[in-house]
Amino acid sequence: MRVNQQIEVSATHPYSIFLGASLEDLGEFLEQKIGSSHHLLVITHPTVGEYYLQRLLKGLLAFQYDILYVPAGEEGKSLEQLSALTSEAVACGADRHSVVLALGGGVIGDLAGFFASIYMRGIPFVQIPTTLLAQVDSSIGGKTAVNHPAGKNLIGSFYPPLAVWTDFSTLQTLPWEEIQNGLAETIKHAVLGDAELFLFLEDHRQEILDRVPEIYRELTTRSLQVKVKVVSEDEKEKGQRMLLNLGHSFGHALETEAVYRGITHGQGVSIGLIAAAYLAKARGLINAGEVQRIFSLTKGLGLPVSVQGKDPNTLLHLMEADKKNKNGQKILILPDSIGHALVVRDAQDEEILKAWEKVITE
Amino acid sequence: MRVNQQIEVSATHPYSIFLGASLEDLGEFLEQKIGSSHHLLVITHPTVGEYYLQRLLKGLLAFQYDILYVPAGEEGKSLEQLSALTSEAVACGADRHSVVLALGGGVIGDLAGFFASIYMRGIPFVQIPTTLLAQVDSSIGGKTAVNHPAGKNLIGSFYPPLAVWTDFSTLQTLPWEEIQNGLAETIKHAVLGDAELFLFLEDHRQEILDRVPEIYRELTTRSLQVKVKVVSEDEKEKGQRMLLNLGHSFGHALETEAVYRGITHGQGVSIGLIAAAYLAKARGLINAGEVQRIFSLTKGLGLPVSVQGKDPNTLLHLMEADKKNKNGQKILILPDSIGHALVVRDAQDEEILKAWEKVITE
Repeated sequence: MRVNQQIEVSATHPYSIFLGASLEDLGEFLEQKIGSSHHLLVITHPTVGEYYLQRLLKGLLAFQYDILYVPAGEEGKSLEQLSALTSEAVACGADRHSVVLALGGGVIGDLAGFFASIYMRGIPFVQIPTTLLAQVDSSIGGKTAVNHPAGKNLIGSFYPPLAVWTDFSTLQTLPWEEIQNGLAETIKHAVLGDAELFLFLEDHRQEILDRVPEIYRELTTRSLQVKVKVVSEDEKEKGQRMLLNLGHSFGHALETEAVYRGITHGQGVSIGLIAAAYLAKARGLINAGEVQRIFSLTKGLGLPVSVQGKDPNTLLHLMEADKKNKNGQKILILPDSIGHALVVRDAQDEEILKAWEKVITE
Repeated sequence: MRVNQQIEVSATHPYSIFLGASLEDLGEFLEQKIGSSHHLLVITHPTVGEYYLQRLLKGLLAFQYDILYVPAGEEGKSLEQLSALTSEAVACGADRHSVVLALGGGVIGDLAGFFASIYMRGIPFVQIPTTLLAQVDSSIGGKTAVNHPAGKNLIGSFYPPLAVWTDFSTLQTLPWEEIQNGLAETIKHAVLGDAELFLFLEDHRQEILDRVPEIYRELTTRSLQVKVKVVSEDEKEKGQRMLLNLGHSFGHALETEAVYRGITHGQGVSIGLIAAAYLAKARGLINAGEVQRIFSLTKGLGLPVSVQGKDPNTLLHLMEADKKNKNGQKILILPDSIGHALVVRDAQDEEILKAWEKVITE
């Protein structure tokens, strides 16, 4: 069993992230960690299953397991899907000692993780992130959720996994649009907490576009380290962790306005990041040169830096529903240098509108 | 603000149980504990609301609050109801800083507690148990759940409340059948962990039937202390806490067979307790005199000690679905004296069948 790197996350129940692991070796790890007497529930979706399931199952010969498929996409993250998973889990005899293996991207991780957190009041689960977004971001930090007609990720839990098992080889088959979702979060992590990572991204722009594996290993590792550091200090999102929402208040408004179709999460985040940078500059937190670097890197990696034909007032209004806000007050995360961000609680509607206008084209 | 007694529960997040508190005083407690800037979501059902809501609201003048009603009965404990609560909570502007007040019996506590545990990944909640069952049992220990077509309490969480606020005066308006549900758990607590409480119940049988308030204060306090002791030692039900399932493996099978109609939880538990006592005697754990005392007290408090016309094999089969079982093995809790119980992992189907036969009449 070879693993490039192992990162410990401190949480109510601490866990490890295994980087550069092989799907085939997860079984061996589980045998050592919990023994082979546990029934496993592999939750995945058909496309991911087609690519990686055989490799994973190769290592699970010692276990009794069942495979549950869920539909791909945000539609899968629903209470209905959760209820269906519950029925299937009972039907295949899953008990309190069963362990969930979440094989897939952010949707699978969120849904399977939330399912694990509430099935029989909680059974262990392992994150096996197969997308760049999941590897650098969503598999870390123990947040799980499903969507609800009244809001995205409205229902969920803080539920740390038993382990995060990251096999970089899955990135090679990932569509470019999926890569971009992860790159947007990577730029975000660099801006809010790692100036060196930002430089690394600037220096290797072409290799990133060319999908050079070693560069991805490096950016994935550095990016998730930013997240690990933040969530280790603030597991339940009481303070510091809010920094990870850089670009997201704006981005979520765009996603909500588009009803999560026609705009990816990564596109929302990258436009949101640019809006946040403009607002930060207007407040004198960063200078024009820093805005330009964020703008250039984002654009240079093929991510959108503006959106067409939206109404700023509609988007402003949609930001109000954000669950991080207290008593209707808008809380924004803004960079105050490249590599550092802060929580701003007194942002006025006018300045937010101006930031929106800067990223909206006719 | 007057409280008869305050009991501390040690948990991931420790909390207090306030005994002999007044509904009118909860607001004052909350102002001191968290301040009055939090929005409150009172979750109750219409009948409970009619009796107690005005008294509770009298103390909440300093707060902004909304009242959400859910249907009474186990039917209310569903994912559909949870989804409806979510929509209503969003509609009245509940955010991450809102606090849920669960005013009612076990169903309200389970549903509102589970809702609080997953709405926006968890908001605080206060248990305000208004039934004897909720006061002596379900409001303590941080277990929340909803039912699912595939099983009762199949979906839930461990989520300690901010506080448990117990006003004994609510017991005076409670229907006798509801009192019985609480008495069944009280006898169970006495058998598994408090020989003195058992004696107290034997000595005050008539006062209990006559609903003498002071006797209820005493039995409620002693009964919940048994539970507090057990759950403080085992928050997540890894070991010791299983003792609280005394009578429940049998009882749940009866409830499931009756599809939760025609048999109350208390009736299931009391018949289950008798079955467990017979099985314990067959194993030589307790003697005939002890079985007789358990039988007499249960019957003397008007609780059923047998059930008519059931098929033991069907009930045996229904016990297998219990989520406390590991790898299909049946785990039973049996008394080994009045005041002490143990976990039995090697119970055979034949002896369980014999115990069923002893409580089934033609």
